Amino acid sequence: MPLERLISARQLTIEVLHDIFQRARKMRAICQNSGRTSLLADKMIGLVFLEPSSRTLLSFQSAAQRLGAGIVFIQGVGSTSFEKGESLSDAIKVVSGYCDLIVARLPKSGDAQIASAASSVPFINAGDGGNEHPTQSLVDTFTIMEELGSLANLDYAFGFDPLQSRSIHSLCLVLSQFENVGFDFISPPELQAPGWLIEQCQSRNVRVSQSNALSELKNPDVIYLNRLQEERFPDRSLFEKYRYEYRLTPEQIPSSTRLILDPLPRVDEIALSVDELPIAGYFRQAQNGVYIRMALLSMLLGRTL
Amino acid sequence: MPLERLISARQLTIEVLHDIFQRARKMRAICQNSGRTSLLADKMIGLVFLEPSSRTLLSFQSAAQRLGAGIVFIQGVGSTSFEKGESLSDAIKVVSGYCDLIVARLPKSGDAQIASAASSVPFINAGDGGNEHPTQSLVDTFTIMEELGSLANLDYAFGFDPLQSRSIHSLCLVLSQFENVGFDFISPPELQAPGWLIEQCQSRNVRVSQSNALSELKNPDVIYLNRLQEERFPDRSLFEKYRYEYRLTPEQIPSSTRLILDPLPRVDEIALSVDELPIAGYFRQAQNGVYIRMALLSMLLGRTL
Amino acid sequence: MPLERLISARQLTIEVLHDIFQRARKMRAICQNSGRTSLLADKMIGLVFLEPSSRTLLSFQSAAQRLGAGIVFIQGVGSTSFEKGESLSDAIKVVSGYCDLIVARLPKSGDAQIASAASSVPFINAGDGGNEHPTQSLVDTFTIMEELGSLANLDYAFGFDPLQSRSIHSLCLVLSQFENVGFDFISPPELQAPGWLIEQCQSRNVRVSQSNALSELKNPDVIYLNRLQEERFPDRSLFEKYRYEYRLTPEQIPSSTRLILDPLPRVDEIALSVDELPIAGYFRQAQNGVYIRMALLSMLLGRTL
Repeated sequence: MPLERLISARQLTIEVLHDIFQRARKMRAICQNSGRTSLLADKMIGLVFLEPSSRTLLSFQSAAQRLGAGIVFIQGVGSTSFEKGESLSDAIKVVSGYCDLIVARLPKSGDAQIASAASSVPFINAGDGGNEHPTQSLVDTFTIMEELGSLANLDYAFGFDPLQSRSIHSLCLVLSQFENVGFDFISPPELQAPGWLIEQCQSRNVRVSQSNALSELKNPDVIYLNRLQEERFPDRSLFEKYRYEYRLTPEQIPSSTRLILDPLPRVDEIALSVDELPIAGYFRQAQNGVYIRMALLSMLLGRTL
Repeated sequence: MPLERLISARQLTIEVLHDIFQRARKMRAICQNSGRTSLLADKMIGLVFLEPSSRTLLSFQSAAQRLGAGIVFIQGVGSTSFEKGESLSDAIKVVSGYCDLIVARLPKSGDAQIASAASSVPFINAGDGGNEHPTQSLVDTFTIMEELGSLANLDYAFGFDPLQSRSIHSLCLVLSQFENVGFDFISPPELQAPGWLIEQCQSRNVRVSQSNALSELKNPDVIYLNRLQEERFPDRSLFEKYRYEYRLTPEQIPSSTRLILDPLPRVDEIALSVDELPIAGYFRQAQNGVYIRMALLSMLLGRTL
Repeated sequence: MPLERLISARQLTIEVLHDIFQRARKMRAICQNSGRTSLLADKMIGLVFLEPSSRTLLSFQSAAQRLGAGIVFIQGVGSTSFEKGESLSDAIKVVSGYCDLIVARLPKSGDAQIASAASSVPFINAGDGGNEHPTQSLVDTFTIMEELGSLANLDYAFGFDPLQSRSIHSLCLVLSQFENVGFDFISPPELQAPGWLIEQCQSRNVRVSQSNALSELKNPDVIYLNRLQEERFPDRSLFEKYRYEYRLTPEQIPSSTRLILDPLPRVDEIALSVDELPIAGYFRQAQNGVYIRMALLSMLLGRTL
């Protein structure tokens, strides 16, 4: 059953992934062959970005227009709504009268649930605080599928901030549905994966391991890295200590590795010299963001190519 | 005669209203049936927003694109022009070389007159300081017409800041043209309707009354509320005193009431429990903003469906 | 050979100018006759503006959409990239996966070179710090060509800040390629044209003169003015001293003058009373910005009308 609203990575069952990937492949073909389509030429997409964003915003702009849709766009920073004193629900109710689907990036955990409930049109959570970022998980899993042909039967390594990275949390939840997968978390001792995540993965029979040194990397098929979340370090000196210690260089990559991903922005976690390797997939991953978001918009609006 | 520039609600004669409403109904049918049209596919609309705006900006974005037009957009905050030292006239002259119609939200009373004079293309005032906001009056009157079938022979109640609300001022001026209407202003004693407004309404034979309590509401057909303009209270404690005292709840609504409107944002002036009533029209009113602005763009660019 | 990237005014050879002007004339005809075309309907243009801009941004928005292209747009102020810690190269690499051509306004001299190297799609420098602004030179030379029929055999006067105006620097470099031209620089003594510019012009056989008073203007065909760059004056009182002293009034214009240009914004350098003269070409010059940028987009994307 196609989705009508996407709030959480928990909605991304294997069946839903399969449907979206099929659509994304068609969207990629359109982009490569004819550039744009008129599939959504009668639609308006509302982009409500109340927190800073660059990649997510730009890829949704690109996706909507490559599908022929128009865009209404409002930006705000650090506010939970458009105007002082107005509730998020009121604001979203109004915007849903101006467009056919809302994509929202919101500042607080749980905002996406509130906004979706207020919207009279389909809704996509483009990140709500530290909580969820389900379209990133779609981009990540699609990239693995296209590069390696499968999401099952793979060993994944995650670094370097599994405690705080919402991209890692959501991706682990989605991948834990697949057969015969292993997760190896690499991080400073202070930033180990949270207990709830470990437990949930183990309850689904994922092989889980942890270590504090890049040199202890198991033999991963996929290395998925995310910058240390500098802004959340209580102690600045700790960040300075770790920023260059946890940095992937070509020499440190185990020979088993077939793909290296990063949701970006890259700060210090991957050396520039890694970029030249064919297994460095992070810029292709970013580009997949457009195809996946085109797929998602078409699905939520009930259109098929 | 169709308008070429809309600066003031004083231009909204009964004849002009009739023309715009006719167009707006066709635009609503387009939105509901086919989503978008190519009526203005050869046009570019310039959106110049030098003061914060959300609803007005978003509804013009939606209106322009639903008509097939492109958008050039510049935003600024708290500035009377784009760049330090440049005059508003110079800035508008340049923008009018980039597009076929300018919509401008400007910070100071009277700016719309200056900008319109500088523009070599049709011009719409989307709010100039505390002065005028004529497209809001169009949205308001269209909503009343569509919900109640008439603008004449009705009793209107206005609250709760008739002293300072430019939406109330402009709407009263427009409505005072119609036969057999009554205006009842409800407000704290400090925020009563200004003398010039009362006089102008009475000179046009409007029945005018005022009171300081919701409980003294006459038997209105329409209740039109607008938040207390917090930012304009010299004394913060006064605002805190009144914010919950002037708050419409379902129990306070006279049985004569057939429609409740609010230009939004809603702060405290309407209890959430009112939203469920069929006569709560404010979200439908917001949605009408798109149809009205489509109508206006088509009229000023001389196009008819 | 058509350009694929435009970084510097030094790329604007006479042959390139000729090609772009031809295209710009066709674009002007499209704008005047049919408003928009679908020449780039399958393309997405990325607008990356990390420094404030109004005219350049708006004219690129207009140009892209008049050609039928979609736009992805990201704005930032005072930052060298989108997110803290990310390199400009990474950011541009990602954006070039979202669109078919990048237009970038960047804060530091030399940024355009870095960004172009990182981009996997055609690239246009829309201003990098105090360094280059080649599309402005295209607008300037096109305007002279269309108004006077030639760029050669003309005497040009430049004021009033030839030391710091990048528009003047780039334009002089482009014009110095033409036969039999003379440059007369008028400025306060502190703001005279830099030595490297004078030398380069003289090495190409340009007749060069300088003076410190408007009254000493030679007999120019074209007067090209640019505001005093207030923000770069170390001494505020110096700016205040000169701002009204260097101000062109109708009485000061030599009878030889056939065209007055200004890249705008105009501050004090041209009296308002000059606007009424037929030789005041600066608002027509601004409008040419759309045609030139349409021409450039079409050339860099390899499309011909």
